[in-house]
Amino acid sequence: MSDAPTAGRAGEVIAALAPTFGARLLTSRAAREQHGSGESWLPATLPDAVVLASSTQEVALVLATCTAHSVPVIPFGAGSSIEGQIHAPRGGISLDLSGMNRILAVEAEDMDCTVQCGVTRQQLNEDLRATGLFFPVDLGAHATLGGMAATRASGTTTVRYGSMRELVMGLTVVLPDGQIVRTGGRARKSSAGYDLTHLFVGSEGTLGVMTELTLRLFGLPAAQQSLLCSFPDLDSATRTVVAALQSGLCLNRIELADALQMTAINRYSKTDLPETPTLWVELTGSDGAVAHDLAIFEELARDAGASRIERPATAEAASHIWRIRHSALFAARALRPGIKGISTDVCVPISRLPDCIREIQSVIAETSLLAPLIGHVGDGNFHLVLLFDPADPDETAQAKRINAALVALALSMGGTCTGEHGVGLGKKDYMAAEHGPALDLMRRIKRTIDPANIMNPGKIFDL
Amino acid sequence: MSDAPTAGRAGEVIAALAPTFGARLLTSRAAREQHGSGESWLPATLPDAVVLASSTQEVALVLATCTAHSVPVIPFGAGSSIEGQIHAPRGGISLDLSGMNRILAVEAEDMDCTVQCGVTRQQLNEDLRATGLFFPVDLGAHATLGGMAATRASGTTTVRYGSMRELVMGLTVVLPDGQIVRTGGRARKSSAGYDLTHLFVGSEGTLGVMTELTLRLFGLPAAQQSLLCSFPDLDSATRTVVAALQSGLCLNRIELADALQMTAINRYSKTDLPETPTLWVELTGSDGAVAHDLAIFEELARDAGASRIERPATAEAASHIWRIRHSALFAARALRPGIKGISTDVCVPISRLPDCIREIQSVIAETSLLAPLIGHVGDGNFHLVLLFDPADPDETAQAKRINAALVALALSMGGTCTGEHGVGLGKKDYMAAEHGPALDLMRRIKRTIDPANIMNPGKIFDL
Repeated sequence: MSDAPTAGRAGEVIAALAPTFGARLLTSRAAREQHGSGESWLPATLPDAVVLASSTQEVALVLATCTAHSVPVIPFGAGSSIEGQIHAPRGGISLDLSGMNRILAVEAEDMDCTVQCGVTRQQLNEDLRATGLFFPVDLGAHATLGGMAATRASGTTTVRYGSMRELVMGLTVVLPDGQIVRTGGRARKSSAGYDLTHLFVGSEGTLGVMTELTLRLFGLPAAQQSLLCSFPDLDSATRTVVAALQSGLCLNRIELADALQMTAINRYSKTDLPETPTLWVELTGSDGAVAHDLAIFEELARDAGASRIERPATAEAASHIWRIRHSALFAARALRPGIKGISTDVCVPISRLPDCIREIQSVIAETSLLAPLIGHVGDGNFHLVLLFDPADPDETAQAKRINAALVALALSMGGTCTGEHGVGLGKKDYMAAEHGPALDLMRRIKRTIDPANIMNPGKIFDL
Repeated sequence: MSDAPTAGRAGEVIAALAPTFGARLLTSRAAREQHGSGESWLPATLPDAVVLASSTQEVALVLATCTAHSVPVIPFGAGSSIEGQIHAPRGGISLDLSGMNRILAVEAEDMDCTVQCGVTRQQLNEDLRATGLFFPVDLGAHATLGGMAATRASGTTTVRYGSMRELVMGLTVVLPDGQIVRTGGRARKSSAGYDLTHLFVGSEGTLGVMTELTLRLFGLPAAQQSLLCSFPDLDSATRTVVAALQSGLCLNRIELADALQMTAINRYSKTDLPETPTLWVELTGSDGAVAHDLAIFEELARDAGASRIERPATAEAASHIWRIRHSALFAARALRPGIKGISTDVCVPISRLPDCIREIQSVIAETSLLAPLIGHVGDGNFHLVLLFDPADPDETAQAKRINAALVALALSMGGTCTGEHGVGLGKKDYMAAEHGPALDLMRRIKRTIDPANIMNPGKIFDL
């Protein structure tokens, strides 16, 4: 792609696509604004047009047309990305895939399914209800499975089932030139050549468009029990997590909030929980396994110094504590209403988690910002919501500085700058530090597969 | 690489490397023969020389030198590959990595380790003994972890822990030009850019040389119980497997042998087991979970028609039934001593397994060959040992025909031509049928990373 403005070329693409897409090709400012910002704190940048695709063949037509005219294509699912993945800094076509929302096959005996990329995880789990199966990746956002694969998303149950990396078995992908390829398949394992599936999962729409996904499913567990455990300090909470992981307990979720986050939750959810570091825990499995492991977990927590363990007695009470957990981000933002928040996302080896949290909190203490913490602590991944006023240059600089300091800290501990949100525009600056010479290898692969650089250009890295 | 013979150029490489490697550069026929065949049924083809590397830097020197002279490099671990991965059909340098066998770090709290590529899984597990941790991939062969990653190997415990695909967290890789890159890392998950780790895992030495691996480890389970279950037919055995998988039982291994394989085992291991389809099962977890799930499994097996369930009462007795399982390949070969065997390796969605086995057995019944069956049935993966006399053209043709028919059958069922042995030379002919246009994408990636085509040329696919 040349560096010339795309506006004129985008007009050619719009003219070429109009006969096929008709009313499904949108150029209104409202439609473009809706497709140009997502859930990111970054300022919106709008595409030239939005195309609502309804089939793999239509996606192929859009990509071939955009390649021919060197116009960017930005795949769009539910618009929930956090790091600017759906922004259009170079204009182009926002390719809205939310209408590709058919569940194509559910193979209950094999515990897999094939869906179009616009199916949301909520829609899939509704559809699976009668089968006794479910798809486990459980994140805060309302997201499409295609978008979740594109950012290699994870969530509260990753400690048990893995992330999208582990759960996507195969893909239908449209390459930038419009060619349609299938990767992977329905066999549980294969040694037949290069693992193209994993190359596309996490590539954030920079290599092609995933239009269909084959996913692993799991049987609903017979039993589950939740716990809410309060600790005097973060160290005792994380010590409990490490011990529980090493004991191989049937943990389904294990989530941490710090004292400030608990204050935020009490205000937002009108609860009266101890405002000290807290673990949400869920054990699932057979009745016997859950009862057995629950007793062990409680003992580990008490040994580590837990000051209070609440064991919800009913499904409704358990559901309440998880609702509180899932509203933590809103609770955090409500500490300063109307203010922006950068959600940090580092992930470190679990043994380094206490140090990582302690060190960044001492950095935060030197600033004027509030930064409540919530995390998927079983994976070593946590989020700080850095609350700042974008109209205040000093606060903005502080928030950016904390984010950069946290990434540097995580990398020095063998961790990563992003556990689950992806790179987009927001984490590009850290790629060289994290990957070293491997970043150039990523660039070589990008140039080979997308020589015209039409696919979500400027995301993950610059060429 | 040009099509000119490599012999002259190989001589230049040998001369260039001699000062550095001295006695670790071997050109004797014995050394070259030892490095030119592996465990494959394919006729040996020898490299021009063998280099014993001792460090990542030495590997970089060899690769840069071979790139400069357009001479092939064939990475070599323990020589246990089955499909001709270590053959040298175009000559070149066999790069023996077995001396790179240091365990670099064991991080017990984080349950990971970093090893050099020449460490074997047996060596690693010996080393881990005092930690209460283990590395789970359990295959028949004595293999290096680098070789296992290169072929994306798996084995009896993949049903529980996954294959090398799921267990390699990061790599040090030497690219063909000698550049050293790190991929992945020690964080349990990451969304930071392209998944290069998975690109190299399973690439069979065609993209570079993996010299260090970071691997996931697991806590040894508190309890385990094995079972040996005899069934009247294959259908009742595989029905039991599907039901057990759907119930989410704490299966650690679940392996199937057919009646002919049981006959072979009785002869070879001097046992008196029923000569009917048989499942080996191992449940692991907490005492309670194992006892609970054992009762359920036995009920499922009886419901499906199991004629006999043997539950070894001691660890020694359990170890005996697994020794019998691990010697199944030798037992199969002993049905016709001195004869070659092609080990087939298809993997299909589990629901198709009974049909797949039934249909291929009816093909085999029309030939004169013996073909005992053993399989990692929890993954939908099984092996037939096609026993044939390579001096008999008719038998050879029959064996090849059965292998091809089985692959076609597996592909028609949504499966793969190789579940765990890899492609090498032996499965190249099936790549186009399995991957369609995606095969060309693999070729584009290969050309980008290895433009001189020095890395294990002619394996997986031709350019």
